[in-house]
Amino acid sequence: MGSIGNVTPQTMHFAEPLRLQSGSQLADYTLMYETYGELNAARSNAVLVCHALNASHHVAGTYEGDPKSAGWWDNMVGPGKPLDTNRFFVIGVNNLGSCFGSTGPMHNNPATGKPYGAAFPLVTVEDWVAAQARLADRLGIEQFAAVMGGSLGGMQALAWSIMFPVRLRHCMVIASTPKLSAQNIAFNDVARQAILTDPDYHGGDFYEHGVVPKNGLKVARMVGHITYLSNDDMAEKFGRKLRNAAETNEYAFDFGVDFEIESYLRYQGDKFSEYFDANTYLLITKALDYFDPARSFNGDLTKALASTAAQFMVVSFTTDWRFSPERSREIVEALVSNRRRVTYAEIDAPHGHDAFLLEDARYMNIVRAYYDRIWLEEAA
Amino acid sequence: MGSIGNVTPQTMHFAEPLRLQSGSQLADYTLMYETYGELNAARSNAVLVCHALNASHHVAGTYEGDPKSAGWWDNMVGPGKPLDTNRFFVIGVNNLGSCFGSTGPMHNNPATGKPYGAAFPLVTVEDWVAAQARLADRLGIEQFAAVMGGSLGGMQALAWSIMFPVRLRHCMVIASTPKLSAQNIAFNDVARQAILTDPDYHGGDFYEHGVVPKNGLKVARMVGHITYLSNDDMAEKFGRKLRNAAETNEYAFDFGVDFEIESYLRYQGDKFSEYFDANTYLLITKALDYFDPARSFNGDLTKALASTAAQFMVVSFTTDWRFSPERSREIVEALVSNRRRVTYAEIDAPHGHDAFLLEDARYMNIVRAYYDRIWLEEAA
Repeated sequence: MGSIGNVTPQTMHFAEPLRLQSGSQLADYTLMYETYGELNAARSNAVLVCHALNASHHVAGTYEGDPKSAGWWDNMVGPGKPLDTNRFFVIGVNNLGSCFGSTGPMHNNPATGKPYGAAFPLVTVEDWVAAQARLADRLGIEQFAAVMGGSLGGMQALAWSIMFPVRLRHCMVIASTPKLSAQNIAFNDVARQAILTDPDYHGGDFYEHGVVPKNGLKVARMVGHITYLSNDDMAEKFGRKLRNAAETNEYAFDFGVDFEIESYLRYQGDKFSEYFDANTYLLITKALDYFDPARSFNGDLTKALASTAAQFMVVSFTTDWRFSPERSREIVEALVSNRRRVTYAEIDAPHGHDAFLLEDARYMNIVRAYYDRIWLEEAA
Repeated sequence: MGSIGNVTPQTMHFAEPLRLQSGSQLADYTLMYETYGELNAARSNAVLVCHALNASHHVAGTYEGDPKSAGWWDNMVGPGKPLDTNRFFVIGVNNLGSCFGSTGPMHNNPATGKPYGAAFPLVTVEDWVAAQARLADRLGIEQFAAVMGGSLGGMQALAWSIMFPVRLRHCMVIASTPKLSAQNIAFNDVARQAILTDPDYHGGDFYEHGVVPKNGLKVARMVGHITYLSNDDMAEKFGRKLRNAAETNEYAFDFGVDFEIESYLRYQGDKFSEYFDANTYLLITKALDYFDPARSFNGDLTKALASTAAQFMVVSFTTDWRFSPERSREIVEALVSNRRRVTYAEIDAPHGHDAFLLEDARYMNIVRAYYDRIWLEEAA
């Protein structure tokens, strides 16, 4: 059981305009994606892995010459791993508006010849799924064995099951929610305000000013990061430990770094602000806020999921307070009301929302067992 | 049972230098305070009310000509109220470093003739208590009937019981904690980073630039405010309601206001940024972070509270996730281990941390009953 090894991203250009939920459209666009494993002759073993806020098409494997470049779900996807690339043909695709290669705010707007910036149209989870479906068309995949994602990726999997019921046999929704709560939206709006009010944001046109709204991105990431970790896990890992514990172990009495947790979060914020695009952060948080498939059904999630035909796996983590198990149970209950076949696992894990990305034997084993079942069905 | 009516703040100047925990000292300083009710002949009916982050000496009553100027705990303090000013002589005092009249960062530093700004020395909960004790000396109060506070105010009450065991008969610690968690500190540091990186902060010397770091303060307040409300209460009050619900009830597809919760938080943030001082926000959050009486006792809260002599009332609120009931129980357990007399109430209230400021019959009744007991002891 190892990594896939070296992988190579690919691009696919789409000349057909994409009409978006907002009413805007993208005249043409490019998607960056990666594939692992082999598509079988029946074209029936494809699995689409959807990414969350700050991830990309680079799900597994490494890039040549960069052994530290492992994909964001390399522990989940690879030869002999829970999603076994010896069995399945796995696709990771960077979403529209993201900043890792697919068409986004930093690319030129054909209408103006300048980067889109804040003029890049707001895209929704459903828009992403529509774009992903076109990629599947081009790759000759009529039906996925599974569409799978965690967090925002789980929302895309759920949207797939609603929008294209017969194009997936299994839908795997991990650490996700059928809609954000007021508190979730509130945290996203704090992050957005931090970016929007950074003078280096320049109304979204910072590219042409040769600057990046780093301070805003840093604060945005810090507040986001807090919501990814559990209170207990933070207490365990950092507690009130001082950064200078090995030296004076005294308070500094200034506004520098006193506590390890400050050092950690500021570092995470700084690092993030160096690689992530501010406009992308804004529009992805809006996609999160807007996702609410029950909205067209007067808030009735059961009705929203009535059109689904897939089988489902839903997974939540006990200490996830961003998208708590309660939110996953809403999905499960709505599916059960529709008499869908659902496997639900509530994993007792200490790592909060981040748990969906981490190694945890029970979690990995249950996903593995689920893929074993898909594989056996496939072989039958 | 009504308001006290019009009240008038007073000031007291202290020419004696105050040595601070940091090692710095304030050469001289002024405290702003208010008193309600009458000090009895025995000088035994005084109650000190300590304020939290953004409050002040103005605990109860109104200012002449401004009927909307009710004090921050006007529902708790007044004639016939739980803390009955017909019985008790109540003192509210603005803490050093705050921005409501006591010596703080916006006042002139005698050493430079310019506002202190970020050069105002960091003050701790214990420093505040030391300054409050001097005010009590001047007012001729040797022993308080009670020292009481909520949140950061509760920390001051607790510090009083440790630092001046025989100067208070009762210590009332509400919605508080013996120390911040890593998560609490993390949220405070996000707020500080938002302020410190606002270009209008000017290293703390924004006064002389004629600007205020409003954007930073706004983000700081927004993130703070989220932690004051419970998830359930936010869901109940705001949910996913759109601000334009009465009109189109459609998403705006821009970065303006979509949801009511965004409108509410941004409004709160804007309002706060107009009246609160950025340097004060920074230093008060550090006072919160630093409070940890068990720190000098190798983390042993029982030992830290061994010197106390008061009787205690501790109150927590079930949905308070900022300072959860668990944190109050730590205080109670440490006091019980010391064989102190403790009344503990865990109030089942939906309003999160903010509950300590709100009307709630069970909460108000238990505080009232506790003051009735103090009054009866007093009369005995």
